[in-house]
Amino acid sequence: MTILPSPDFLFSLVEAAARESLPRFRQGGAIDNKLQDAFDPVTEADRAAERAIRSLIEASYPDHGVLGEEYGTSGGGRHLWVIDPIDGTRAFISGVPVWGTLIGLTIDGTARIGIMHQPFTTERFWADGDAAFYDGPGGPSRLAVRPTRDIDSATLFTTSPRLFTGDRRAGFEALEARARLTRFGTDCYAFAMLAAGHADIVVEAGLKPYDIVALIPIIEQAGGMITTYDGGRAESGGDIVAAATPELHAAALEILNRA
Amino acid sequence: MTILPSPDFLFSLVEAAARESLPRFRQGGAIDNKLQDAFDPVTEADRAAERAIRSLIEASYPDHGVLGEEYGTSGGGRHLWVIDPIDGTRAFISGVPVWGTLIGLTIDGTARIGIMHQPFTTERFWADGDAAFYDGPGGPSRLAVRPTRDIDSATLFTTSPRLFTGDRRAGFEALEARARLTRFGTDCYAFAMLAAGHADIVVEAGLKPYDIVALIPIIEQAGGMITTYDGGRAESGGDIVAAATPELHAAALEILNRA
Repeated sequence: MTILPSPDFLFSLVEAAARESLPRFRQGGAIDNKLQDAFDPVTEADRAAERAIRSLIEASYPDHGVLGEEYGTSGGGRHLWVIDPIDGTRAFISGVPVWGTLIGLTIDGTARIGIMHQPFTTERFWADGDAAFYDGPGGPSRLAVRPTRDIDSATLFTTSPRLFTGDRRAGFEALEARARLTRFGTDCYAFAMLAAGHADIVVEAGLKPYDIVALIPIIEQAGGMITTYDGGRAESGGDIVAAATPELHAAALEILNRA
Repeated sequence: MTILPSPDFLFSLVEAAARESLPRFRQGGAIDNKLQDAFDPVTEADRAAERAIRSLIEASYPDHGVLGEEYGTSGGGRHLWVIDPIDGTRAFISGVPVWGTLIGLTIDGTARIGIMHQPFTTERFWADGDAAFYDGPGGPSRLAVRPTRDIDSATLFTTSPRLFTGDRRAGFEALEARARLTRFGTDCYAFAMLAAGHADIVVEAGLKPYDIVALIPIIEQAGGMITTYDGGRAESGGDIVAAATPELHAAALEILNRA
């Protein structure tokens, strides 16, 4: 049996990251563009936060691999830490506190523990390998999805409808037409709200592993379901569907794939 | 010369509202639908917060009129308080802290003072008749727009691209194609970010007076510009464009109206 790193270790990682990100939030620092023909922003907050996380992991778990958005992959073996120092850099540079620091650990390719931290609101959502938890304003609580089974009464989240193209757009619009309420603009915060029982379906297109690995155990250990469009494990990213219940997940996949 | 109510009075109003709204945030309370054929949610948090605000205004300013989203218009005269107890009820019922309490005062039809309060993040954005201010995490500050003049370097916000129909949709999409970055899902929070210098353009369709009156003085007294699509005053709501500078505002209007 594998002994998993403790929640206290996860907290130490996100606190180190927050010391780099939060003082740079809303300060108008330089924004670099990673792309030539589109806008994919990155800031010193992203880079410094990832360096802080990596150095703590390397000190405590020198035999584990690390995959981060800004500095790529280092090391290897059965354990791989997967890091997005600021998921939602577009929200970060726009002043809106729905970005988060994502840190997850896969063992033999399966996400086992993870944390999402929003330093401005002081909220943490994490999974310890067995169950998922929250603390922040409103007090600590166990995370649990709500029992929504019916799309007609579901709240649906995605970051932007513009991320869906071709058949994926038609599928998303068909799902949106059925959902009671659709919200945009949330990045990782949407998955946290699903785990906490405030939303029912999250659909995202074109995710990277570091966008999703940390969130998989939070959703699964809160009782939800998260897969790719073809029903497979979500650790590799791609087009992802998370839902509060198996029934809702199956119904959403059916609509998304019909188009 | 008219003596305007003090910021302390505005603070007392939003604090009374927060005592009703915040304890109901993320508690899964009942959601009523105001419409037959679509979803326009309202909760006891909206209603109780508006009652709390109205009763304080009526006690201090019995000769002023009050217009609120949930309880309509009462009284009359030159002074009219315009209230949205929870702007962004859809965000509120989805757990996302980008909703806010909006309270503005018009005198002879012109918005003079206003406040936006986000109780979960403990942020206040207000205008006292002369200047605009912020307090919250990160400390107090004077609100000031940033000097963006060029759409190609602008961050554009709207709550949902689905709110634009017909020519309005074509105009919005033309503006979106030009902006450096477009963000969705923000309700009143977007206007606050514009006033604080983190965003450059906010476009919204079909607003009511209570969605916008409180925000007009905050934007104007932070140095920004806010009008209807035809360049008129925004107090009556409708389709609204706010921008950080007159040059950017003119450029945005030109694109929005060309379609």
